[in-house]
Amino acid sequence: MSAKDRTRPGEIEAALPERTDARVVFIGRIRTPFKTRDECPRQGRIDGPVCRIEIDEPWRAALKGLEHYTRAEALYWLHEARRDLVRQSPKSDGRSIGTFALRSPNRPNPIGLSLVEIVSVEEGAVNVRGLDCLDGTPLIDLKPDSCAYTPPANPKKDA
Amino acid sequence: MSAKDRTRPGEIEAALPERTDARVVFIGRIRTPFKTRDECPRQGRIDGPVCRIEIDEPWRAALKGLEHYTRAEALYWLHEARRDLVRQSPKSDGRSIGTFALRSPNRPNPIGLSLVEIVSVEEGAVNVRGLDCLDGTPLIDLKPDSCAYTPPANPKKDA
Repeated sequence: MSAKDRTRPGEIEAALPERTDARVVFIGRIRTPFKTRDECPRQGRIDGPVCRIEIDEPWRAALKGLEHYTRAEALYWLHEARRDLVRQSPKSDGRSIGTFALRSPNRPNPIGLSLVEIVSVEEGAVNVRGLDCLDGTPLIDLKPDSCAYTPPANPKKDA
Repeated sequence: MSAKDRTRPGEIEAALPERTDARVVFIGRIRTPFKTRDECPRQGRIDGPVCRIEIDEPWRAALKGLEHYTRAEALYWLHEARRDLVRQSPKSDGRSIGTFALRSPNRPNPIGLSLVEIVSVEEGAVNVRGLDCLDGTPLIDLKPDSCAYTPPANPKKDA
């Protein structure tokens, strides 16, 4: 564990249970210009650098139709994060905030989520802006932005 | 598998690999008025019914500070979804769309994501509007809405 990963004054740890309630399968990886965590922005910006989301087989066929959208939500696994902090002290000032009131990568299920702008969709890859993650971060999902999305199926009676 | 889960004409299956690349731990559950999938809306609505997100120990302490936000992102595991469809036919008309161009629950990692409005934060629970999931859906994460969020730590040089 590097110095920056040490528990700070005021932070509260809670060991992650050993159980596996669901299993995640990595479906690709994200190529970004950020080679270390210090280089990663705290939040992705829609005017940030172009990053490349590479999709593995057999999921490349699942990109069909994404080219009709301008924005998408990318979900990825923050593989270097701690999973055992329930209170964190972002300013290292002895005061702590709950993990669910932070967008810190350190969380019991370290899933990163960014709203990205789609620059282009290729065979097996998507170029986007708006990501904040390390180069090589594993991809777990990609879906059209909920704001722009209209379900293609007929509305149910609730809609 | 019920009739509605059968593969439709035009849909493409790809078996999910057996591997576990990352393990998810359920941290609570979501109480909604939707007792069957037919009752679930296709998308949650901010003016929809109040639902209750229950947090298990040891993560209740992680709620501290969430009361300062009006909106949050809830991530949950769509435990009844299929994970083996790369092309889906929402209208059952023989035409199919890629899974990453849909917000269907059926996806390789069936993670649901809703932007919710926070009604109240209690000890160990959050009441919200905007969810679309089945009663009893396992919770995997909760974080402040990215639009309203300003990281509490000092900005990095990129910001």
